[in-house]
Amino acid sequence: MPQLRKDPVLGRWVIISTERGKRPTDFATEPEAKKGGFCPFCSGNEDKTPPEVLSYRKDGTEPDSPGWEVRVVPNKFPALAIEGELDRAGEGMYDKMNGVGAHEVIIETPDHEKSLADLPVDHIAAVIKATQQRMVDLQGDTRFRYIQVFRNRGSAAGASLEHPHSQLIALPILPKRLIEELSGSKKYYAYKERCVFCDMVAQETWTKTRLVSENDLFIATAPFAARFPFEVWILPRKHMPSYDVMDAETRVAYAAILKDTLQRVNGALNNPPYNMIVHTSPAGERDLKYYHWHVELMPKLTKVAGFEWGSGFYINPTPPEEAAGYLRGVTI
Amino acid sequence: MPQLRKDPVLGRWVIISTERGKRPTDFATEPEAKKGGFCPFCSGNEDKTPPEVLSYRKDGTEPDSPGWEVRVVPNKFPALAIEGELDRAGEGMYDKMNGVGAHEVIIETPDHEKSLADLPVDHIAAVIKATQQRMVDLQGDTRFRYIQVFRNRGSAAGASLEHPHSQLIALPILPKRLIEELSGSKKYYAYKERCVFCDMVAQETWTKTRLVSENDLFIATAPFAARFPFEVWILPRKHMPSYDVMDAETRVAYAAILKDTLQRVNGALNNPPYNMIVHTSPAGERDLKYYHWHVELMPKLTKVAGFEWGSGFYINPTPPEEAAGYLRGVTI
Repeated sequence: MPQLRKDPVLGRWVIISTERGKRPTDFATEPEAKKGGFCPFCSGNEDKTPPEVLSYRKDGTEPDSPGWEVRVVPNKFPALAIEGELDRAGEGMYDKMNGVGAHEVIIETPDHEKSLADLPVDHIAAVIKATQQRMVDLQGDTRFRYIQVFRNRGSAAGASLEHPHSQLIALPILPKRLIEELSGSKKYYAYKERCVFCDMVAQETWTKTRLVSENDLFIATAPFAARFPFEVWILPRKHMPSYDVMDAETRVAYAAILKDTLQRVNGALNNPPYNMIVHTSPAGERDLKYYHWHVELMPKLTKVAGFEWGSGFYINPTPPEEAAGYLRGVTI
Repeated sequence: MPQLRKDPVLGRWVIISTERGKRPTDFATEPEAKKGGFCPFCSGNEDKTPPEVLSYRKDGTEPDSPGWEVRVVPNKFPALAIEGELDRAGEGMYDKMNGVGAHEVIIETPDHEKSLADLPVDHIAAVIKATQQRMVDLQGDTRFRYIQVFRNRGSAAGASLEHPHSQLIALPILPKRLIEELSGSKKYYAYKERCVFCDMVAQETWTKTRLVSENDLFIATAPFAARFPFEVWILPRKHMPSYDVMDAETRVAYAAILKDTLQRVNGALNNPPYNMIVHTSPAGERDLKYYHWHVELMPKLTKVAGFEWGSGFYINPTPPEEAAGYLRGVTI
């Protein structure tokens, strides 16, 4: 069973894989994302993944067989174990608990060669719907306090498989970054009686200097204090604490702006590796006045160096206003 | 002038290089660390760096000429500008200030081929002394609130030059990570009336399972909640808030354990790229009861993926107890 351990100074929880510890020599041989060759996520290879927990598929087709459009399976090499109690315990001055959680893969299309940005808006909306359904389902398990949804593209961004997919991890704790966002946005609300993200949407649509794209329900913008070159955030215009409550219309609008944004990033930066992270409210907290879900998209263009790691203090060589200008200029 | 900008939710400051913004095509061509070829840090090329601010050199040799053992110069491409007022200002809801600060390079040896771990203990102690001297000097400038000292080795860790060197950046703000460490260790002190780092030293020397190396004045240990495989922290045994107050004896003991630790890491992991960060108290705060300086060494073995970026929540595939075992087993 993996272990969750808490840093005694920072309060940051870390997953320690105790089962199959990587030895020094394992790192030298860490493989690049597989190009070509066998892919367990392709249609026809359904028996090479754990049995599916959800799929959208043609009428009359069987689970774990071809005919699906979107398919969700447990991760074959999960970071956390689905069975077990939390069993919080001390170890002298330190705190630990069992690494209980869920780790699932959302296979976004049966077509290995497609990228998420290539899919039709309706198909992307189906991927979002499947993600929401899994989030709602997992929140029924009272052990889980947060569902982290993320997407890595390219081996430089940590993706180990090329086939278009995203992932979710259900966690028994709140991630440090979310705690900080909740605390920061709560303070802002206490002072202003407004949601800080709503205010960001207002200022970005008013000034337009950092705006990348917009539609009726969403904006995509380079953030004022972007950590990384070409970092883009997508936010719903209206206050909405939780990703999992988007209705059909909102889902389609989100799918549309996500496709548009990814096309711009791919066009400006020649299909870069990237990480995309959903930031949403804790499990079951769907009515927070001060928190507003959003997505952070970070193209992986620079090597983050020691200064950044050590200090949490980033040096961004491309002003977000310039990045937004380049992204707006891409012909789609 | 670079700009410092604050994230309105997290309170995190970011340096935005506004002078010479990197365009999309600049990232495709980002060079690897130069192997061979011309090196501005080598002896004989002193005129290729800005004039030195400090050097330890043979009697009778001139500044900015050969004959030095350790040489400190301003960074030719500084992240912050040394001249100017802070000029805090708003931009609608956002906060910014001038990117004022110092950015210096500590050239650790005239010999391009040496690594820090190869240098004699006395030479490493001289590097540490030079760093301390610069820290003390820069703290005389009231604009600077923190001196961040760090070392990147290898292009995968963000080093742009191969020649052994470390860097320091004097900042007009406290980095986010330091604020968190101060706040966490203060809470622990309020509860226990002991320094959390002193307690860590006590538990690690008592259990020994994560201990990598020790001498009379320092320990090197894998931390309980290590984020990365083979992460190692070096801590003074006795309570000591600030790096810049180490006396001659302590400096030599630190140089010795640093050399020993780097040799173990190099031996176990085949000279990996790494980041090494000094964590010390804010400028002028040399008497904090709750804060204890230490160094964090992070070999760069895995690609940090989206999950980690987005959540501040790390998955470490090597338990620190196993990592420490491998490092202890290295023959030096």
